Amino acid sequence: MKLIEKFSIPNELAKKMIEAAENKAKELGIAVNITIVDEGGNLVAFSRMDHAPLLSIGISQNKAYTAIGFKKPTGDWYPMIKDEPALLNGIVHTPKLVIFGGGFPITVDGHVIGGIGISGGSAEEDEMCGEAALQIVQQLV
Amino acid sequence: MKLIEKFSIPNELAKKMIEAAENKAKELGIAVNITIVDEGGNLVAFSRMDHAPLLSIGISQNKAYTAIGFKKPTGDWYPMIKDEPALLNGIVHTPKLVIFGGGFPITVDGHVIGGIGISGGSAEEDEMCGEAALQIVQQLV
Amino acid sequence: MKLIEKFSIPNELAKKMIEAAENKAKELGIAVNITIVDEGGNLVAFSRMDHAPLLSIGISQNKAYTAIGFKKPTGDWYPMIKDEPALLNGIVHTPKLVIFGGGFPITVDGHVIGGIGISGGSAEEDEMCGEAALQIVQQLV
Amino acid sequence: MKLIEKFSIPNELAKKMIEAAENKAKELGIAVNITIVDEGGNLVAFSRMDHAPLLSIGISQNKAYTAIGFKKPTGDWYPMIKDEPALLNGIVHTPKLVIFGGGFPITVDGHVIGGIGISGGSAEEDEMCGEAALQIVQQLV
Repeated sequence: MKLIEKFSIPNELAKKMIEAAENKAKELGIAVNITIVDEGGNLVAFSRMDHAPLLSIGISQNKAYTAIGFKKPTGDWYPMIKDEPALLNGIVHTPKLVIFGGGFPITVDGHVIGGIGISGGSAEEDEMCGEAALQIVQQLV
Repeated sequence: MKLIEKFSIPNELAKKMIEAAENKAKELGIAVNITIVDEGGNLVAFSRMDHAPLLSIGISQNKAYTAIGFKKPTGDWYPMIKDEPALLNGIVHTPKLVIFGGGFPITVDGHVIGGIGISGGSAEEDEMCGEAALQIVQQLV
Repeated sequence: MKLIEKFSIPNELAKKMIEAAENKAKELGIAVNITIVDEGGNLVAFSRMDHAPLLSIGISQNKAYTAIGFKKPTGDWYPMIKDEPALLNGIVHTPKLVIFGGGFPITVDGHVIGGIGISGGSAEEDEMCGEAALQIVQQLV
Repeated sequence: MKLIEKFSIPNELAKKMIEAAENKAKELGIAVNITIVDEGGNLVAFSRMDHAPLLSIGISQNKAYTAIGFKKPTGDWYPMIKDEPALLNGIVHTPKLVIFGGGFPITVDGHVIGGIGISGGSAEEDEMCGEAALQIVQQLV
């Protein structure tokens, strides 16, 4: 019987992603929380920038988890459920599920190796920080 | 005083139901999580197919629980509450309640013997897997 | 930068392990709960044998999690901490940590691919069921 | 009325402390989880070294919290309560309280500016990593 082969994000890459996201946040003049989880949803690294909102600590963690939990950006959720009223009123109550932007799976060569979640700015700003972090991945791996 | 007599799903039947649901999922080209609970809401058997979404582990458990919790399919909930704004905005916050399809009570001769919850595909796909599992029950009991 | 490579237990192997553990439990005349988690601690498969104790549902899950959480059998914990009073009085309160026998990491070629937890019999009986399940792994992979 | 003035750890210092703790862990040949919280107990930064135990994610967080929660190292707790049976049997059940070594308040000029928690090695090894991180503080602030 064949085992399932997985690839997982190393700590060093997680720290580089956080650095890239923070640089983008500084450029935007905002302070955010950034969470990196591995492909199994376990915390790898976290950083709260000075003065970033406290409630966003948990939101960033949930965004990272949602991103690996369904292997899609959190920003894809609302368009996907907006015309399905049972989901729109129901699935949003799933613990840890976030349906707005700021969470992304981290993908290398078709393998989801982890997830990143950003929270503290607007959904658009959070996404810009996340995208800056994802660009680093393609350069480094 | 007469005691309450209950009939409950045996482990062997739970495993057969999981097998039937998984076969349907494979036919549909999806990977799902399947939970079977007994009539008391306690876990009997669970299976996560390879590569099924992690966030659906909990959703499948909650669907199975909701199904025995009110002895009706989870898909019946949204139509039932959609025109009652207090329920639509309120009852959805009940822990473990799922208001979209994929959970079913398991009924034999009018007795609810347990519940099944499927999560990982669309609500319609999850329901098709659940129905495949329910058909097995009528053949085996 | 190099990614971390992991190997993870497939669902089919998890089911075979559960079957082997249940066969041993039947031989011993006991009814147990069996949990299999992957290397990231996420549920893969679970089975509660008919009439197995309800409180053991959670204990079996925690044993499986502890086994992957420190990559050692749960039965190793008490001997390891018994002469360290701060740990003996303290670490036992860690959520999900089980310090008595019945949980084992599942290891193939030096890779921890998941964990198994058994609960329902004595610690020794639970361990015998777990060991029966681990033997299957070496035959099948 | 005079307000309470606080001094709190900046994110940049938290990252330097994590780096120092990780360097010490590498020297010791271990992989640990490191948590930094601010003086309000809120997460500032976290890092799980590659292959560090998953159960230690939470333990490191609880050590950091305990350290600021009573403004003393977690290793001080067991000696303090060991001859007080009501505490030894009772207070250990307090959520998040850790009574063994590996958590330290971070103090500058008499102000507790945050806490650090290390978990993954023995209590002694965790403490050595924490002390390496605390030395950096005195150099940098």
